[in-house]
Amino acid sequence: MWFSSDNAGPVAPEVMAALAAANAGYAASYGADPLMARVTAKIREAFEAPEAAVYLVSTGTTANALSLAMLCPPWATVFCHRNAHIEEDECAAPEFYTGGAKLTLLDGKDAKIAPESLARALSFTGRGGVHNVQKGALSLTNATENGAIYTPAEVAELAGMAHAEGVPVHMDGARFANALVRLGCTPAELTWKAGVDILSFGGTKNGLMGVEAVVMFDPKKAWEFELRRKRGGHLFSKHRYLSAQMDAYLTDGLWLRLAASANAAADRLAEGLRARQARLLHPVQANAIFTAFPRASHKRAQQAGAHYYFWPFNQSLEGPDDEMLSCRMVCNWSTTAEDVDALLAAL
Amino acid sequence: MWFSSDNAGPVAPEVMAALAAANAGYAASYGADPLMARVTAKIREAFEAPEAAVYLVSTGTTANALSLAMLCPPWATVFCHRNAHIEEDECAAPEFYTGGAKLTLLDGKDAKIAPESLARALSFTGRGGVHNVQKGALSLTNATENGAIYTPAEVAELAGMAHAEGVPVHMDGARFANALVRLGCTPAELTWKAGVDILSFGGTKNGLMGVEAVVMFDPKKAWEFELRRKRGGHLFSKHRYLSAQMDAYLTDGLWLRLAASANAAADRLAEGLRARQARLLHPVQANAIFTAFPRASHKRAQQAGAHYYFWPFNQSLEGPDDEMLSCRMVCNWSTTAEDVDALLAAL
Amino acid sequence: MWFSSDNAGPVAPEVMAALAAANAGYAASYGADPLMARVTAKIREAFEAPEAAVYLVSTGTTANALSLAMLCPPWATVFCHRNAHIEEDECAAPEFYTGGAKLTLLDGKDAKIAPESLARALSFTGRGGVHNVQKGALSLTNATENGAIYTPAEVAELAGMAHAEGVPVHMDGARFANALVRLGCTPAELTWKAGVDILSFGGTKNGLMGVEAVVMFDPKKAWEFELRRKRGGHLFSKHRYLSAQMDAYLTDGLWLRLAASANAAADRLAEGLRARQARLLHPVQANAIFTAFPRASHKRAQQAGAHYYFWPFNQSLEGPDDEMLSCRMVCNWSTTAEDVDALLAAL
Amino acid sequence: MWFSSDNAGPVAPEVMAALAAANAGYAASYGADPLMARVTAKIREAFEAPEAAVYLVSTGTTANALSLAMLCPPWATVFCHRNAHIEEDECAAPEFYTGGAKLTLLDGKDAKIAPESLARALSFTGRGGVHNVQKGALSLTNATENGAIYTPAEVAELAGMAHAEGVPVHMDGARFANALVRLGCTPAELTWKAGVDILSFGGTKNGLMGVEAVVMFDPKKAWEFELRRKRGGHLFSKHRYLSAQMDAYLTDGLWLRLAASANAAADRLAEGLRARQARLLHPVQANAIFTAFPRASHKRAQQAGAHYYFWPFNQSLEGPDDEMLSCRMVCNWSTTAEDVDALLAAL
Repeated sequence: MWFSSDNAGPVAPEVMAALAAANAGYAASYGADPLMARVTAKIREAFEAPEAAVYLVSTGTTANALSLAMLCPPWATVFCHRNAHIEEDECAAPEFYTGGAKLTLLDGKDAKIAPESLARALSFTGRGGVHNVQKGALSLTNATENGAIYTPAEVAELAGMAHAEGVPVHMDGARFANALVRLGCTPAELTWKAGVDILSFGGTKNGLMGVEAVVMFDPKKAWEFELRRKRGGHLFSKHRYLSAQMDAYLTDGLWLRLAASANAAADRLAEGLRARQARLLHPVQANAIFTAFPRASHKRAQQAGAHYYFWPFNQSLEGPDDEMLSCRMVCNWSTTAEDVDALLAAL
Repeated sequence: MWFSSDNAGPVAPEVMAALAAANAGYAASYGADPLMARVTAKIREAFEAPEAAVYLVSTGTTANALSLAMLCPPWATVFCHRNAHIEEDECAAPEFYTGGAKLTLLDGKDAKIAPESLARALSFTGRGGVHNVQKGALSLTNATENGAIYTPAEVAELAGMAHAEGVPVHMDGARFANALVRLGCTPAELTWKAGVDILSFGGTKNGLMGVEAVVMFDPKKAWEFELRRKRGGHLFSKHRYLSAQMDAYLTDGLWLRLAASANAAADRLAEGLRARQARLLHPVQANAIFTAFPRASHKRAQQAGAHYYFWPFNQSLEGPDDEMLSCRMVCNWSTTAEDVDALLAAL
Repeated sequence: MWFSSDNAGPVAPEVMAALAAANAGYAASYGADPLMARVTAKIREAFEAPEAAVYLVSTGTTANALSLAMLCPPWATVFCHRNAHIEEDECAAPEFYTGGAKLTLLDGKDAKIAPESLARALSFTGRGGVHNVQKGALSLTNATENGAIYTPAEVAELAGMAHAEGVPVHMDGARFANALVRLGCTPAELTWKAGVDILSFGGTKNGLMGVEAVVMFDPKKAWEFELRRKRGGHLFSKHRYLSAQMDAYLTDGLWLRLAASANAAADRLAEGLRARQARLLHPVQANAIFTAFPRASHKRAQQAGAHYYFWPFNQSLEGPDDEMLSCRMVCNWSTTAEDVDALLAAL
Repeated sequence: MWFSSDNAGPVAPEVMAALAAANAGYAASYGADPLMARVTAKIREAFEAPEAAVYLVSTGTTANALSLAMLCPPWATVFCHRNAHIEEDECAAPEFYTGGAKLTLLDGKDAKIAPESLARALSFTGRGGVHNVQKGALSLTNATENGAIYTPAEVAELAGMAHAEGVPVHMDGARFANALVRLGCTPAELTWKAGVDILSFGGTKNGLMGVEAVVMFDPKKAWEFELRRKRGGHLFSKHRYLSAQMDAYLTDGLWLRLAASANAAADRLAEGLRARQARLLHPVQANAIFTAFPRASHKRAQQAGAHYYFWPFNQSLEGPDDEMLSCRMVCNWSTTAEDVDALLAAL
């Protein structure tokens, strides 16, 4: 019963098969492998973006930090939600890759940026001229760190505000597929048609071993990205094994099926929690659940071997049985109905 | 009628005389001048810190950024007030010199950090292990950006909380003299005896041309500081002209007299404003005043040639006469009673 | 007939099997997987270094740049051969990760640092005090970029000179296994016993998919390494797939067998080249061959489908048939005697 | 008898007078002072460059490092002579300000870059694509660190080679005035007409207290420069005191007279040395002399109180009297014929 994170789950069998298939004989190194050409074509097609520049890296932190470095100079700031992964979980990688830019922390429910919070920050930033950092980039996370999603219209509203000030837009799509299948819109509608300039297109949390794509809808600065990636140590010599994973992911809609499976498990879990009077702290729109229930249930679950995190961390199994403790539970592509039911039974 | 900033004022005549005196013949370069030896001795004596390492730089931003770089590694965060100069007015110089550290913004009245805000931040930061930035340094500004001051006991409380977590303490003393003369305590009491590890000891805002000292009460890493200063382009070849300014500043209590003069002017101005029903937005404890009064008075003052800033900036002379607009007025060592009275008369 | 690089070859079947085996159910993320504990134990045992800190990253550039950042502050310099990978092939990744340190380029035959070249640089560097960069680290590559190897005694001589000046020692061991099996010494003899402080222990060029270990023989700063790795985006969430590769590599001497196989292929190729009057430009001590032969032979080889690089690059198939052109040919673990013979036949 | 460096000398009396004059009442801060407007106008006129962007900083290292950061991205390299100040005397400030670029060291007599050395480096750099650093900027020093000068034609030849490869050109003009008055050409001829894009226009070594101008002949990126300067801590609040120095420097040809005076002293010294059979190691074209003479003479000179540096440093007064030791002697604007004659007499 592992609900600690989607990255605790295994790799999808189709992806393992693709790796095995890629392991025949020789291939050109550093991204010149034929599989990468296929990946680029497939992503361009999926996003209806025939000019997009597409690159693979191996972690989400890298995809985000390199993307932000493309958009935000060292003397500017990245507008993001105060619970964004780039703020809370990347040990200042964006600061490192941008060369020392700031992050301006915005507010909003469910880890979604409230338009008025962005408006205030945009109007304030850089007002003092050279003394202040300048407006750099907007970063949206979809699905958010709280398992909520932005609709295309919501993305467009925030991106429009940013673009009106000359501020480009990044989307952290570590769980992009989970958002997309819930919304039922097209990838283009959720990204460039809504104003996203660069997308971190997640794969690792959704069944890959360790691959994320960076999709630059405007390819003008593609060469700069290549240099930044190499300089960060993120260009793989045996690149075909990244390509193979992403190629399998994009074949026959695997990426959408994996995400739909994780979302369905989360729905089942949410329903079961509701039925057991647990409190749901955020809407369940992707594959993560934030919930509160009595300590006694936590004790039972953890004794039964359930893995998940208290959220926030600083809570403990010590204390009165009826006190409500909050936690995060994340489903992944391989979470079965049986897994969910076993967890619910344990509570 | 210049109240825009203390840095709009002139250099004290004693300092000009010292520069002229220093301009005779040859002197060793890069800090090896005999005047610098005198400066070090005087600062050590003034602070009762016979081991302190003392260095001169030419701007406050430099003093702060280099000091923080000594205390905070790139993967850590500087705890500071959200209105601190290092956050609002240095265009990310601390981020640049630390190599990409974060600033964690704390709350508190009058730009003073509230102990509970620091406590919360200390308890939260780094909780997620390697995923988060670590606890780096605490930076206090005395006097604050809102013209308030920390007492030695207040500094000691905050510094004690920091030290308990292994976090060293920096004081931005751009207006250290203004705080000190108000408090009537010793320099040592307001710094190392209260837990300050590194002090940016301001001179420029208080009558020098462009000199700040960095005082490291623990000299262990002095050589590292020298390398950081040189590498930042902040080591002057004709260093004697920095030394001469600081030497004059520390002679016969000039620094204290200049600060007392600026504070007295601010007191007179505050009294006059109170008498005219202006609202004082922060306690007047140093040489800056934050006040609100009707637009009509602003119009009169500005027509009469008064220089000061709306605070916050986004206010305007356009609008109803009786609306209250807030502003900042700063006195400097050369501000006379006549200057103050002329401003008050103009309102 | 691929001799372009060892990274053009496939992954060893034992490693693919280990990845498949690791893909069952759930595992803790970010290096807390049980396989990583096994990897650490095996590397400590192999190197007779029970205290060593061991970390996995996915590229050689990363292993080198992070290692150098541990040893060399931003105001210092890394002494390395002018043909070192860190100078010629990493797009300034060491400069990026160190925060702007220099590389001081040394001379010596076969891309091995000549002791007198190191001596001269050590005596010169930092002589001007704060105006100069300081002595930072020594980096040795074994096997070198020209396919030569340092003996333990040679490593000890250079490392001893460095340590005498307080300079720590890094070894770029992208082809460490190839050097080791040729020398027949123990891993400890070629590293810490000879004065190496940090080793980039290569796997990717020798049959892994994309894994290198960083071995810090002194574990004191292990936590700093973890923060630097995370901040660089190099901490894998699904870390078990790195662990699995390295675990298989270290099982039953696989790493040594793979390297021995590559070296044997290189020996066979060298012998064949000698028999055909090709000139060998460097000793063939690992798995790379640098050779010169007439343009006509190059034409025949490339028509027959041979992949290798001219070395240096700026040579061309256009020109007189009897002109000597130099090139690099690299064998990998999967290079067969038939591959070699086919290439030789094609010449 | 101070010949250690031109920065050991005093400030010109005209400059001291200008500082005193500037010290009346209030002035706008941060470069908005009226004197700065005058400085900009005068530099534009002197250089026949009506669009040039002009900024003041306080050290030569800063002028160079900020200029290079404008021209060279972090993944590129600065081509410079191996004895350039940016390589030997700035403790990696260029690396710091560029965010980790490299310096590629070129050869040539008298610290002048030989065209063939530049050609070779240009043809080699970046050849390996993303694996290598790219071509960033060319930096020329005029007068050079060895006291030699580039003619306009020589600058044009090197700059032309650079521009042909898309590489912009920086000139380190710490001793620009010394070169200019020797050549008798116009400032424009020695800079933008010959292909220089950014000039570090020195003042400190030529009679100022601590001011250098950065002159960007193409003002397109002026705002970026302002942000970089502020972020580096190099924007002075009491900026009028920088402006006043530079304004006096540019008034009535003071800068040219000061340089001519220093050059004349150097000529007199060179003549005297030649007459005494000292060996001149480089042509004496500016205000620095590199010479070798017997140890016995060094002993006499140093006993008589002469200040100068052995060059290279690692020579000593211990040893046989007739051994030749080499040294550097630098004249400054205030060096008199008597000073020179006293030194010569002492030898």
